[in-house]
Amino acid sequence: MSHIYLNSSMLQQLNHTVQEYFSDWMRSQQTHFNHTTLATSPAVTKTSSTTFLATLAVAYLLYKWLLPATRTEAFRPVHFEVPLPEAAQKHWKGKRLHSISNSINEVDSDQRIQCYCPATGQVLGSLLPKTEQDIDVQISRATKAQLKWRETSLDQRTKVLVSLQDYILKNQDSIARVACRDSGKTMLDASMGEILVTLEKLQWIIKHGKKALQPSKRPGPTNFFMKWYKGAEVRYEPLGVVGALVSWNYPFHNLLGPIIAAIFTGNGIVIKCSEQVVWSSEYFITITRKCLEACGYDPDLVQLCYCNPPDATDNTANYYSSHPGLKHLTFIGSKPVAHHVLTAAAKSLTPVCVELGGKDALICLDSVKDLNALSSIIMRGTFQSSGQNCIGIERVIVSARNYDDLVSILESRIGKLRLGSDIDNLEDVDMGAMISDNRFEQLEYMIKEAVKQGARLLHGGSRYKHPNYPQGHYFQPTLLVDVKPEMSIAQNEVFGPVLTMMRAEDTADCIRLANSAPFGLGGSIFGQEYAECNFVADHLHTGNVAINDFATFYVCQLPFGGINGSGYGKFGGEEGLTGLCNAKSVCYDKLPFVSTQIPKPLDYPIRSNRSAWKFVKSFNTGSYTRSVWTRIKALLSLARNA
Amino acid sequence: MSHIYLNSSMLQQLNHTVQEYFSDWMRSQQTHFNHTTLATSPAVTKTSSTTFLATLAVAYLLYKWLLPATRTEAFRPVHFEVPLPEAAQKHWKGKRLHSISNSINEVDSDQRIQCYCPATGQVLGSLLPKTEQDIDVQISRATKAQLKWRETSLDQRTKVLVSLQDYILKNQDSIARVACRDSGKTMLDASMGEILVTLEKLQWIIKHGKKALQPSKRPGPTNFFMKWYKGAEVRYEPLGVVGALVSWNYPFHNLLGPIIAAIFTGNGIVIKCSEQVVWSSEYFITITRKCLEACGYDPDLVQLCYCNPPDATDNTANYYSSHPGLKHLTFIGSKPVAHHVLTAAAKSLTPVCVELGGKDALICLDSVKDLNALSSIIMRGTFQSSGQNCIGIERVIVSARNYDDLVSILESRIGKLRLGSDIDNLEDVDMGAMISDNRFEQLEYMIKEAVKQGARLLHGGSRYKHPNYPQGHYFQPTLLVDVKPEMSIAQNEVFGPVLTMMRAEDTADCIRLANSAPFGLGGSIFGQEYAECNFVADHLHTGNVAINDFATFYVCQLPFGGINGSGYGKFGGEEGLTGLCNAKSVCYDKLPFVSTQIPKPLDYPIRSNRSAWKFVKSFNTGSYTRSVWTRIKALLSLARNA
Repeated sequence: MSHIYLNSSMLQQLNHTVQEYFSDWMRSQQTHFNHTTLATSPAVTKTSSTTFLATLAVAYLLYKWLLPATRTEAFRPVHFEVPLPEAAQKHWKGKRLHSISNSINEVDSDQRIQCYCPATGQVLGSLLPKTEQDIDVQISRATKAQLKWRETSLDQRTKVLVSLQDYILKNQDSIARVACRDSGKTMLDASMGEILVTLEKLQWIIKHGKKALQPSKRPGPTNFFMKWYKGAEVRYEPLGVVGALVSWNYPFHNLLGPIIAAIFTGNGIVIKCSEQVVWSSEYFITITRKCLEACGYDPDLVQLCYCNPPDATDNTANYYSSHPGLKHLTFIGSKPVAHHVLTAAAKSLTPVCVELGGKDALICLDSVKDLNALSSIIMRGTFQSSGQNCIGIERVIVSARNYDDLVSILESRIGKLRLGSDIDNLEDVDMGAMISDNRFEQLEYMIKEAVKQGARLLHGGSRYKHPNYPQGHYFQPTLLVDVKPEMSIAQNEVFGPVLTMMRAEDTADCIRLANSAPFGLGGSIFGQEYAECNFVADHLHTGNVAINDFATFYVCQLPFGGINGSGYGKFGGEEGLTGLCNAKSVCYDKLPFVSTQIPKPLDYPIRSNRSAWKFVKSFNTGSYTRSVWTRIKALLSLARNA
Repeated sequence: MSHIYLNSSMLQQLNHTVQEYFSDWMRSQQTHFNHTTLATSPAVTKTSSTTFLATLAVAYLLYKWLLPATRTEAFRPVHFEVPLPEAAQKHWKGKRLHSISNSINEVDSDQRIQCYCPATGQVLGSLLPKTEQDIDVQISRATKAQLKWRETSLDQRTKVLVSLQDYILKNQDSIARVACRDSGKTMLDASMGEILVTLEKLQWIIKHGKKALQPSKRPGPTNFFMKWYKGAEVRYEPLGVVGALVSWNYPFHNLLGPIIAAIFTGNGIVIKCSEQVVWSSEYFITITRKCLEACGYDPDLVQLCYCNPPDATDNTANYYSSHPGLKHLTFIGSKPVAHHVLTAAAKSLTPVCVELGGKDALICLDSVKDLNALSSIIMRGTFQSSGQNCIGIERVIVSARNYDDLVSILESRIGKLRLGSDIDNLEDVDMGAMISDNRFEQLEYMIKEAVKQGARLLHGGSRYKHPNYPQGHYFQPTLLVDVKPEMSIAQNEVFGPVLTMMRAEDTADCIRLANSAPFGLGGSIFGQEYAECNFVADHLHTGNVAINDFATFYVCQLPFGGINGSGYGKFGGEEGLTGLCNAKSVCYDKLPFVSTQIPKPLDYPIRSNRSAWKFVKSFNTGSYTRSVWTRIKALLSLARNA
């Protein structure tokens, strides 16, 4: 989904600071030792005590600084093991698919889902899709488990997340290997897009989640007569069992995200993964189930569902989306599928958080100085996971001054990118495979059309047959410049390794170009002046913006979601948690012995309609007038009609 | 929608306090006068000065207490006039419909919408429904107006709401008369359900809305390396033009609610009213448009749309719901219509806030002492607007101890209710007409079925032909007791003047019964012990709960919305405002001279995949480990691989 970068000089500085602290501490220890044994005068003793106390203080501060969280029971992880599938072990030699034009949709008579590695074409196995009956059983099991789970405290739930986080930290290699095997990405792509963002999500909820789910006090009524005694608050309660339909581009992170949020909010979850990544999802779901079990809870709380895409004979996917047992759906996927899911969910009146694709722009203003540094960010933001990111950079919009320079920098860099697989450590590569070859034709066509309309293709532009992996799904890193908003490639999501550049006249033109696509997910703005960047941020029609950075809004655990063609609703952050809750509005009496009564003139049977009307009219006037004399008159009239 | 009650003894006390203050003040004035003219000793002068200053302080406090808001420009209303339609003027003698079995669906060849008073059968006129072309024009006009409106400040928008509030306060009679003429309700029902709740909504937004729309600072990332310099916030921006499909039961309040929220959030709105209340909606929309105009803004920001329900030849309603020009829809209506709206909105990917009906329970626990007072609340909560309230009391669930007593109190009271119309001040009545007779058969059938299954019908149970208004749509106030959850009347929304009572064994049984219907909108709990009430509140499967009161959660401007069969999403309160915004997540650098850079090992082309992996693995470990030594080791490894 995203990545973060850190400055190596910053790191060295940190490391230096640590070493300095320690040498200081060692030195002071020695001084203290020398003083206590050799010196005896009171003055020296006093100095040595001071040094000793100062040392203790420094050590304590250092300890606190390095230690991330309180040492309570909730923060002590429970350990558990999950066996690694054979195909993710080192030196595994998997058979390759026979057919070169392999496809996930080639199903046998059992309608089994075929699993293989898109980078190497190695067969991973096949799995039977879930049936409607299976889904009923899964939802009913999760429902049963949730009835107990909803009673757990937030500390108990935190402990499960802490254990999960601990497992992930200790098993980064295994998790990345499984994700790479099933999706064809590189280990580096997995380390940032799968593991880092999942760890941050866990840590954020562990640290801030409890606060987000506390009852939220509200101002209560403004009514002159009621405001004194009415209290109002919103309480966040579990919904029950929720669902999620997640995309294949980050098989670990996309699966874990909704599970983590569901677990913490006291819900159960039956999550549906893409048929493209069933093999890895089975492993990842086992991690969460084992974690629940190790912590003493029913693993049935979390269930994995998968099936073939719906067609004339198979309606399983829609059965899932319209299941009344699911109280909320999170959908991460594409627009055409969203229409199906929303139509199905309309039947069961299930709320859906809709996260679709984007056409995110990276905007480079005239004030940007270090184009080389920026080009590194652009390269990662475009080619991470072969461009299969909903918030990947789909358009680089460069204000006039820097356009030509940036084009030439990127042109010189892009030629050096090597394609392949690094999961078996056989070679150094920059970019992995794509999940499937089913969109290659469309990509090539869009690029060709753009060139016909005046864009310049500086590199790539078509699929790539890898000499070592003829069955792999590779597409050349592509650089297409002078792209105009009218071109189809500027209007449709590419979701591939295509860097398109658009020239803008000035800052206003950057905004116009950025807003010219029918999506509204994210965007990033680079410039020297914060005020100018902020002005652009305020004028982008998107749900998320990063200033002088790429996609950090996703890492930051800000509520994440788009507008317009990118969907609606938010996951992540506070809203991601409260959105999975029944936000129950409760009002109550704040003062003892004061409660609402029906005033005489309004009690059935109505004594006089005319007085009743006058009574409420005066009540309304007295409650809401801005004139002090009108209020006094209203109070008197109220008393008269009471 | 709702009502609030005030204790007449409280009112008298308030009035008394005011009088006391004034007499105190007058007395002290006199004392002061006497002292300054007659007494001359310094001690007396000192006393008199103190008295004088104290008087001033009291007067000031009294002034502040009575004065509701700051006296800034934003709080000074602009005045405007809207001519009252003839049929809402006093002593209007309208012709009655010829046919007794009148129906809104009796359309002429023009497909004109017929308007009439359901209480008297008087004809109000007819209006041409909007066409698809009309809707395009309305949305494009609102879009144009919104481009300017979105640039207004919150203070400028506040001024519009203050002016609207001022108009409503001064024209309560006119507004109520128009609402009653078109819906058949009583003036008292209008005063509370139409006017009071609208005034409170306005006042709440005027007072608290600005705060709700301020950028919301967020914690930012927890990542050890990023947390120092990354800032994060959510900003609330207008969406554009929004839509709302609102129900007929409160023609003024339901129409004004979404308009007020849209205006304040900087959006335009094209609102679709029910074909049942087009006549009054035309008047009410004029109020909001005149108000905008008087304040110097384009009235095109607010548009009223209406058409016939969709059928084989008329798709206008779905055209509206799937219009890509509407960025958000609020739907207030029934389940069957919701399915249509949601399916249409799925096409345009428009988010919908879905407010459906309910089967709200009022729970009377064993600890309730004053059954008479409670019976007054039950009567109002059930028969207000002839039971046509989404949060009306649909079930009275009484714990064993109080059941029989409450039944007999209600039985004795219900017989005294008189039906009719009070709009022309001809008689005193308790309950008005229903909007239409099209559900009478179903109501009678449900009641009969319940009786067959063991319920006791103590009053009413069928339609009522009013001697003075033979064309009016009246249904008898009905009391049905010993209702069981299996009965159809306990499972389906009645939305009519039917008081159903269910006997519960104890508090746990109250909860079980309350949760036995497939809705989840609101509920209220009455009992002596707050802890017990709160326990029940926490176990109700509803979106809203009032403790020891009826429906005040709605008045309080808490976010309002249901779960399960009652829909999803919230309007009202903070969420009602932010829900109409693009909640834009923005992250930025907090420290000057610190920004994210791509570290060398991760820069393309990747020097060594192995080091890159180790680098990010150490980064992840250093960022998220809970062990201080692991962190130090990770920092060292990071430096080694940098």
